[in-house]
Amino acid sequence: MRHATRGDVDPFIVMDVMEAARQAEAAGRHIIHMEVGQPGTGAPAAARAKLVADMADPLGYTVGLGLPDLRARIARHYADWYGLDLDPARVVITSGASGAFLLAFSALFDNGERVGLGTPCYPSYRQILRAMGLTPVDIPTDLADRFQPQPQHVAQHDLAGLIVASPANPTGTMLDKPQLAALAAACAARDAALISDEIYHGIDYDLRPVSALEVTDEVYVVNSFSKYFSMTGWRVGWMVVPDDHIRRVERLAQNMFICAPHAAQRLALHAMDCAPELGANKAVYAANRALMMDGLRAAGLGAFAPPDGAFYIYVDVSAHTDDARAFAAEILDQAGVAVTPGLDFDAARGHHWLRFSYARSTADITEGLERIARFMQSRRA
Amino acid sequence: MRHATRGDVDPFIVMDVMEAARQAEAAGRHIIHMEVGQPGTGAPAAARAKLVADMADPLGYTVGLGLPDLRARIARHYADWYGLDLDPARVVITSGASGAFLLAFSALFDNGERVGLGTPCYPSYRQILRAMGLTPVDIPTDLADRFQPQPQHVAQHDLAGLIVASPANPTGTMLDKPQLAALAAACAARDAALISDEIYHGIDYDLRPVSALEVTDEVYVVNSFSKYFSMTGWRVGWMVVPDDHIRRVERLAQNMFICAPHAAQRLALHAMDCAPELGANKAVYAANRALMMDGLRAAGLGAFAPPDGAFYIYVDVSAHTDDARAFAAEILDQAGVAVTPGLDFDAARGHHWLRFSYARSTADITEGLERIARFMQSRRA
Repeated sequence: MRHATRGDVDPFIVMDVMEAARQAEAAGRHIIHMEVGQPGTGAPAAARAKLVADMADPLGYTVGLGLPDLRARIARHYADWYGLDLDPARVVITSGASGAFLLAFSALFDNGERVGLGTPCYPSYRQILRAMGLTPVDIPTDLADRFQPQPQHVAQHDLAGLIVASPANPTGTMLDKPQLAALAAACAARDAALISDEIYHGIDYDLRPVSALEVTDEVYVVNSFSKYFSMTGWRVGWMVVPDDHIRRVERLAQNMFICAPHAAQRLALHAMDCAPELGANKAVYAANRALMMDGLRAAGLGAFAPPDGAFYIYVDVSAHTDDARAFAAEILDQAGVAVTPGLDFDAARGHHWLRFSYARSTADITEGLERIARFMQSRRA
Repeated sequence: MRHATRGDVDPFIVMDVMEAARQAEAAGRHIIHMEVGQPGTGAPAAARAKLVADMADPLGYTVGLGLPDLRARIARHYADWYGLDLDPARVVITSGASGAFLLAFSALFDNGERVGLGTPCYPSYRQILRAMGLTPVDIPTDLADRFQPQPQHVAQHDLAGLIVASPANPTGTMLDKPQLAALAAACAARDAALISDEIYHGIDYDLRPVSALEVTDEVYVVNSFSKYFSMTGWRVGWMVVPDDHIRRVERLAQNMFICAPHAAQRLALHAMDCAPELGANKAVYAANRALMMDGLRAAGLGAFAPPDGAFYIYVDVSAHTDDARAFAAEILDQAGVAVTPGLDFDAARGHHWLRFSYARSTADITEGLERIARFMQSRRA
């Protein structure tokens, strides 16, 4: 049967890692999971309890833009966290950040238009753009610029749009307010759309993450309940769009999704009032991060930018290998630790990089680091 | 800020009806809802109870293609309902039928390709195609061919793909086995992709609906837990794809959606074992349908094809008006019954048609028909 060239999507290398880890576990081995990009925790317990009560209702379709109470609560969240006065009408509830990208790309870009990504980056940006008949444009970034694209790239690459992420996956680096403002200005100067992925906000350490909404209203901000709110599998997120895009995005959302999952929307509303449990999760990530930075450096894997946020460290392993995929397989096989080779995030240079996730328990992180240290020692021996 | 021409989506006319109905209710009037396209019932009670127990688990991401148990259970469903031996590997769990269409169009069609729709039809087919940079091609159908496209249309309209729906929305008509086989053959002859929307299977009356899988494996079959399984707001559906498309669709699904909502997948699995409650829902639709056909004919609104399935009747009102939108507004205003003008389903000819939904309670249907009869009588007076 026919198929489309735009469906020619790259495989996820990490899936091979996960499958190899699964096989090792099935064979009785104990594996530490530093490859996964999701919290080990579920949705906050109090929120789940409230959802159980809600389930007496039929929970049919909501309106396309999402439950009005949730949109209002998210607007209040921007006041609480960023001191911003945000009109709830600009908040669109989406089927996860994934659904937000599908909506944003349909609203903003026509067939074949060029959309820039600072590489390394979340691999699905590139694949979703392709799947929608658009042209992803890789913009190589490096340790020196903390893996973030620069304003001049917008004109250099003749972009119709730019996606930035802060804190970023896989590097955990952030953009500060002047950097975001400069990128927004560069986009505005060329009528390029700025899309700011802020799904790791709330999982941050020494610095407060800045929302693109603090520097401009001319931006699509994408966020999610998957990370800080620990609700990955529920598939609910949100987007903030400019005033004059609300109706357009509403029509697209009605047609492309009907609505985001109703139960997930209710759970999200409840989860926003569970700060203590969510704060406890964050404290675990902070402890894990400190252990990871020390442990990786001690193991001879210290070539990284300290992460400002998220729960990843992206490590340059070029001193040890030219084949990160084989190196990851070796670590899994010999140390029993699953890690992600950089190729998913950066096809051109990822063979020199590994991503370590520290989203799981501190006990797992401690054990994993000990295994990695022994592995690196044995390799030098 | 810039926007894309492909985001220029038509508004839903039915939304105006729903808003007018909401305002009437807010003003204290009692409105009968014959405009809505969803069951009034929620998910089966036993399934909901099991999900509550499941919620002790974190319910994180599932694999991209969905829970293996659910995929296997759906394969068994094809044995039970259609006598088909289906490989569970071909079943893809999706974020509702909406998610299935987004996936299918990415997998099958490149920018600008022509995809045929028999009009009248579900309006979002057209809008999703546009949003993805494809070209929807309207194929006018009529009462004589029971509102279904014909094999010769594939070549006539130079189609890269054809979407059929059986039972169809808004008409409730079905395609029989020879008709489906002829359409499949016409598509195969031109390497056009056949997409069969079967979301109203299970809500059928005198005839058994035929799955396109009974006549070919070279088809994308789209289905959903929203209608027969009464799970609209949970946003979970499925797709059956040809063997050689599984990997392609898997990669697209991983990137575009990560996964369908986990809780909804669990609930769907439980709902598949709730035949008695679902059968009781169906008995209500069957009773409503009989009342509707009699009641509409008695009211002088008998120009329709008797629906084989779904919970809609699509009525030619050209004897009464040239402006279905105004006519619907009149029925809402004078009779207190909300109905949908045909324009959403057929932009060219919908001004002569109304869609009546009978998805709600039998008491509502009875009351609504009495109101409509009085309204039509007063109009003749």
